[in-house]
Amino acid sequence: MKYLLLASLSLILINSSLAQSRTKDEAAIRKVMEDQSAAWNRGDIDGFMEGYWKSDKLTFLSGTNVTRGWQPTLDRYKKSYDSREKMGTLRFSDLQITFLSKDSAVVLGSWELKRAADTPGGKFTLTWRKFKEGWRIILDHTS
Amino acid sequence: MKYLLLASLSLILINSSLAQSRTKDEAAIRKVMEDQSAAWNRGDIDGFMEGYWKSDKLTFLSGTNVTRGWQPTLDRYKKSYDSREKMGTLRFSDLQITFLSKDSAVVLGSWELKRAADTPGGKFTLTWRKFKEGWRIILDHTS
Repeated sequence: MKYLLLASLSLILINSSLAQSRTKDEAAIRKVMEDQSAAWNRGDIDGFMEGYWKSDKLTFLSGTNVTRGWQPTLDRYKKSYDSREKMGTLRFSDLQITFLSKDSAVVLGSWELKRAADTPGGKFTLTWRKFKEGWRIILDHTS
Repeated sequence: MKYLLLASLSLILINSSLAQSRTKDEAAIRKVMEDQSAAWNRGDIDGFMEGYWKSDKLTFLSGTNVTRGWQPTLDRYKKSYDSREKMGTLRFSDLQITFLSKDSAVVLGSWELKRAADTPGGKFTLTWRKFKEGWRIILDHTS
């Protein structure tokens, strides 16, 4: 009986510690995305790109267009959004975070750009990995 | 020196065993997708749906349209593809499998439907989890 109690207590402690680290990880991912939209909304595409894995293996998929690597993704953003008017005001919403392991997650959400001329928007799924430097997007599929 | 050799040998064995299970998991995922396209190409949408997680939490994202749950996803497929002509011949290609943990992976790839009238196609990212029953898609983002 004593052992059963101890075992139960250990399980409760382990679960509670897991839940705590999940909450921390979820907050960390949300923070990266808040930092991204804040950077975007001050016209700072380099700052926005901090949320992405700085690797040649970063994959960015917009509709049916695939871009490989952090630098080409940055270049693509700078080319597509070469003025503050085009950048507009970015807002992420409806974030749904699913953890796949202790160091990987997928985030489904909506994006919207408020601009003088129009309000483009859509959905994304972001695959994340936790690195020494923090959580980073390794695969972005936007549609 | 003897311990160093033993440690190195252990690491080699562990790595080799990991590599072997990755190869098996990759083959298992490819097999699910082959079974899916084979089912599709004999007009069997129920068979095609076997590759998806049978859960209310299955998420299917086509462009900006989100469908939740296995049954609504099946219903959507049956409504959109209500004849053999509309189903055409499905082919998956350019599969790129990235493992996120021992029981999760993301697959980027291309799809194409050969039909008498047209050849629609695009890209997808599939998030997979390994369950007791095998690898299943838990999130499909198609664009």
